[in-house]
Amino acid sequence: MIIILKESATDEQISHVVARVESFGLQAHLSKGTYRTVVGVIGDEAKIQAAPLLAIPGVAEAVPIMPAYKLASRKAHPQPTVVHVGSGDAVTKIGGGHFGMIAGPCAIESAERLDSIAGDIKAAGANLLRGGAFKPRTSPYAFQGLGEEGLKILREVGDKHSLPVVTEAIDPRHVEMIAEYTDMIQLGARNMQNFVLLTEVGKTGKPVLLKRGMAATIQDLLMSAEYVVANGTTDVVLCERGVKSFDNSCRNMLDIAAVPQIQQLSHLPIIVDPSHATGRPELIPACALAAAASGADGVHIEVHNCPEEAMSDGPQALLPAQYAEVAKQIRAVAKVVGKTF
Amino acid sequence: MIIILKESATDEQISHVVARVESFGLQAHLSKGTYRTVVGVIGDEAKIQAAPLLAIPGVAEAVPIMPAYKLASRKAHPQPTVVHVGSGDAVTKIGGGHFGMIAGPCAIESAERLDSIAGDIKAAGANLLRGGAFKPRTSPYAFQGLGEEGLKILREVGDKHSLPVVTEAIDPRHVEMIAEYTDMIQLGARNMQNFVLLTEVGKTGKPVLLKRGMAATIQDLLMSAEYVVANGTTDVVLCERGVKSFDNSCRNMLDIAAVPQIQQLSHLPIIVDPSHATGRPELIPACALAAAASGADGVHIEVHNCPEEAMSDGPQALLPAQYAEVAKQIRAVAKVVGKTF
Amino acid sequence: MIIILKESATDEQISHVVARVESFGLQAHLSKGTYRTVVGVIGDEAKIQAAPLLAIPGVAEAVPIMPAYKLASRKAHPQPTVVHVGSGDAVTKIGGGHFGMIAGPCAIESAERLDSIAGDIKAAGANLLRGGAFKPRTSPYAFQGLGEEGLKILREVGDKHSLPVVTEAIDPRHVEMIAEYTDMIQLGARNMQNFVLLTEVGKTGKPVLLKRGMAATIQDLLMSAEYVVANGTTDVVLCERGVKSFDNSCRNMLDIAAVPQIQQLSHLPIIVDPSHATGRPELIPACALAAAASGADGVHIEVHNCPEEAMSDGPQALLPAQYAEVAKQIRAVAKVVGKTF
Amino acid sequence: MIIILKESATDEQISHVVARVESFGLQAHLSKGTYRTVVGVIGDEAKIQAAPLLAIPGVAEAVPIMPAYKLASRKAHPQPTVVHVGSGDAVTKIGGGHFGMIAGPCAIESAERLDSIAGDIKAAGANLLRGGAFKPRTSPYAFQGLGEEGLKILREVGDKHSLPVVTEAIDPRHVEMIAEYTDMIQLGARNMQNFVLLTEVGKTGKPVLLKRGMAATIQDLLMSAEYVVANGTTDVVLCERGVKSFDNSCRNMLDIAAVPQIQQLSHLPIIVDPSHATGRPELIPACALAAAASGADGVHIEVHNCPEEAMSDGPQALLPAQYAEVAKQIRAVAKVVGKTF
Repeated sequence: MIIILKESATDEQISHVVARVESFGLQAHLSKGTYRTVVGVIGDEAKIQAAPLLAIPGVAEAVPIMPAYKLASRKAHPQPTVVHVGSGDAVTKIGGGHFGMIAGPCAIESAERLDSIAGDIKAAGANLLRGGAFKPRTSPYAFQGLGEEGLKILREVGDKHSLPVVTEAIDPRHVEMIAEYTDMIQLGARNMQNFVLLTEVGKTGKPVLLKRGMAATIQDLLMSAEYVVANGTTDVVLCERGVKSFDNSCRNMLDIAAVPQIQQLSHLPIIVDPSHATGRPELIPACALAAAASGADGVHIEVHNCPEEAMSDGPQALLPAQYAEVAKQIRAVAKVVGKTF
Repeated sequence: MIIILKESATDEQISHVVARVESFGLQAHLSKGTYRTVVGVIGDEAKIQAAPLLAIPGVAEAVPIMPAYKLASRKAHPQPTVVHVGSGDAVTKIGGGHFGMIAGPCAIESAERLDSIAGDIKAAGANLLRGGAFKPRTSPYAFQGLGEEGLKILREVGDKHSLPVVTEAIDPRHVEMIAEYTDMIQLGARNMQNFVLLTEVGKTGKPVLLKRGMAATIQDLLMSAEYVVANGTTDVVLCERGVKSFDNSCRNMLDIAAVPQIQQLSHLPIIVDPSHATGRPELIPACALAAAASGADGVHIEVHNCPEEAMSDGPQALLPAQYAEVAKQIRAVAKVVGKTF
Repeated sequence: MIIILKESATDEQISHVVARVESFGLQAHLSKGTYRTVVGVIGDEAKIQAAPLLAIPGVAEAVPIMPAYKLASRKAHPQPTVVHVGSGDAVTKIGGGHFGMIAGPCAIESAERLDSIAGDIKAAGANLLRGGAFKPRTSPYAFQGLGEEGLKILREVGDKHSLPVVTEAIDPRHVEMIAEYTDMIQLGARNMQNFVLLTEVGKTGKPVLLKRGMAATIQDLLMSAEYVVANGTTDVVLCERGVKSFDNSCRNMLDIAAVPQIQQLSHLPIIVDPSHATGRPELIPACALAAAASGADGVHIEVHNCPEEAMSDGPQALLPAQYAEVAKQIRAVAKVVGKTF
Repeated sequence: MIIILKESATDEQISHVVARVESFGLQAHLSKGTYRTVVGVIGDEAKIQAAPLLAIPGVAEAVPIMPAYKLASRKAHPQPTVVHVGSGDAVTKIGGGHFGMIAGPCAIESAERLDSIAGDIKAAGANLLRGGAFKPRTSPYAFQGLGEEGLKILREVGDKHSLPVVTEAIDPRHVEMIAEYTDMIQLGARNMQNFVLLTEVGKTGKPVLLKRGMAATIQDLLMSAEYVVANGTTDVVLCERGVKSFDNSCRNMLDIAAVPQIQQLSHLPIIVDPSHATGRPELIPACALAAAASGADGVHIEVHNCPEEAMSDGPQALLPAQYAEVAKQIRAVAKVVGKTF
């Protein structure tokens, strides 16, 4: 931490800043510049990161040197984490050169439909089946998911096709139940800073798919990953799925540079969801290929066999045949940048 | 709803769109333009708003005419809602010309400190005491609040100073307990789209303070208000508290135009929180006055008697004396635009 | 300037950084922390601000301590600048307690129309007449302004009503001509970083109205003001007119906190343009009042007597009667915060 | 154009809207819905696009059906445009399967340095040499470029290495001179809406490299391309180079989805500049590969042989050896998606 004082800071104020730093068991190193005094903090920065330094009279700025996340950082774990999802015959690895192909419908609507979609995506090369049983809908009047019934369907269909399964949790009271039915728990973009939910999901020890919030910085995302890891789950896959921007020609703006950035900062795998990022099927293939080329550890694509009848987010789903086509190209591009299948 | 077809739409596709519209019990009204065909939907638009129209082949755009919120809209309730918070001697009215002066520390830290702050803000004209017992912190290592102990302190201090009290809920499992101790429940910015929590809080029937999410559009905020109202609570006060922007000179960007916009769209009161919007005490007075002049129904300001020791968000709090000064000016400005005290 | 090195920085790299700093005639002050080394730069930071420090191996971050603008900063000129616009009987002062009421149509369309509008706004209390003769239109097919003919009309109408006049320059080849006809030259939002134009306009010595770009930070705006002042014009009025945001319910998002921020950083007056900020007449009054309450040094409002026939930006103009009404309220609010009329 | 009326619109207002539409030589087609009346405009929408429809009493919304750009649209020219840059032996094609590899230093600093860089990038596969002679710098005190001397160097070095050359124009008074020395003229991000400059550059008939503004929507970019094409130059290459976002971990946010979006809307080639988009060399390779995979028609990368001494934007340049490495991978990825070299 570097504390930059105001030009107007008095000697008394400077002494007070030094005393505050020392009160945290840290040392203060003064550097008087031409215009301003700067206080370098020596010692474990974590002790002072949450302190309201800007509220101290005479302080202009406090510049952290260390990130506030630790367990999620590359420093804590220099090698990339390989997340294992599933068990028995159906284990999918994501990270460290292993590429996750997550696909499925937005919501689980019926056993028949999910079975049909699962068969198609498995054939196309998908290795993880997604489907929502509890849906966070912006309208209280919209379809909210099949609940536990949906979880049962997901489990059965996944088992039938030897695909591990992932579904979203939105209520801390359901986390335990979801953990029983599925292989991985998704934390959605709207809940990325639902710290209560992060904590509960982290405690299950299950692999987690953590989606970036629509206005979350990369630092925010890694802090949320820290919540999950600090509560006990080290198998966290991060997911870039587009953020808010001033240009509403797409639903969100896919932040492709987040992939190499996160890979520098963290050991956790990072995948990309071009379905939610764009909200438009005709843009999904180009964005999925961009993700693969950028070095992402996987892609998450919504697939539905009759989008116009989908009970949630139909317009952003690919048809199974479209998915098969793009899946082939994704593998070709991912191989160029060193991924194995 | 107006459905705009692609230039390339075939007659068959147009017929299919018409059939889809009719399948919802609505009528379709075709208008063939020079370049494109447009389908006007006649009937209750609510029936079709959640349908994946963009997934129908040949459809280019679907333009809703009616907002997706109903109970929160001006149309449902042309007169401004006056929210009553508290009971007995300590009732504060917000909306319809009544101005809410919400103040207090970010977190409840001790009975003594809260008592001291409450006495000061009451003397300065505040009419609603805030304080956090459960804190949504971005770091798992930061102070998370005193929990139920904090709620007890808040209730006692509020009663002593005849100030109704508001505190934030972050966990659906705590909502009932919070409702017992407090007069109003806050839904924070990070939980604005935590629909599970919105639902639980709505069911209590208690007045609600709903803060706008950091990347929520005004439409998003009103949809979240709809969740609360649809679950049983009509006393919802909305709160603009700054949104994310490209300029990080302030913590957030205060969207002052949201005040008149919301007043046109909704009957619910809208207040402004310049503390979270700016994160810098020297900017709070100007923004609070701007809020009062814009016609806002109140302001929410953090006050702490020793910000540098605050356990949460110290740097954005005013000192009691600073609050007293700005409170006087706020009243002067609010009176110019017709508010009563 | 504080240069933060990477954890992996070698001793050789650290020595190289020190040598680079010294090569600019500055001193380097080393501070070895627990994890990282920090180099404080002692001396005139301006010498090193433009250097590509991040390109030096081992450097992680370079944190400037001094702003890159000097002439525009409060430090250079602690008292607020009062800009005088016009001459003879028609002088309007802006800044230092003097409130500018700039009004007029987006574009000059005819002598009759401008005369009528000018009479109305003068009666309502406006003290500076605006009107565009050269329009920066996003479409090459839209009305581009009357050119020099418009300037003549503006000069005549201003003189008739004893109102100083301001118009926008968009071409460096026209700046001299515009300076002859008008009392103040506007640099529009789209040209805020047209440094060629800033330079030419600065050289005229005429007062300047510099509008903030749609995605310009406050720092960017002050750097552009620095261009104008460095070229010879110290009479620069800054104008906040809304910036791009993710919420397109308004044309732009009015950044009201920019007013107190700029007043802390700079001695130059800062006014607000609620017309361009909102693009919707029903929101203009609330935003204009917010501006006055925030301490702004003036407001810039578009007024047209038949918006539906306006040749540019009609939908964001107030009718003369609406302007008269809001002007009265603006004065009442501005007086509360210490402005004189 | 579809004009949606307010619920409160009177019959008289509706008649007036119809009359206004007809006054433009168009037909109005009324559709009375359950809640609102909608007016469909039949005929050439271009006639009414610039009209201030929202200023007409009773009008709630005006939804255009046709884009406001024509010459730049796919509809005007269904086949992709192949832009030819250069003459004689040194012709580079961009678009329609031809991939542009634009590289070079930010600014031209000396003949020796440019010669060295040009030799390196040519060997690595670059086919177009860039270098700035007139630099738009945010600080008036920073290096502004070598001017005409720089143009001479660029021409000579380009000729020596058989590389066509591109440089930026920032002043309409220099456009003719620049056109004499170079093969392609760049319009920079800050000048994307400098319509005076767009017009002058368009008149030269030279190929143009038009960079997207930092807060420009895709629609804005295509409108600026329309300016250039309408003035006479059909050879316009568009360039996505990152836009402003709330996350300042990168200089800008690369909008990779802009590539497929623009390819659907326009026939003009679209390339990507990962140097300006990220501002950090360690992120450039991943973003360049993502661009190639997304189907972009080229990449624009800054290369410098001693970034820490660069007179402009050193920290975002690759070293020649880094460029050679990524150029090889770019070709491999681009071939997977059908590009030829």
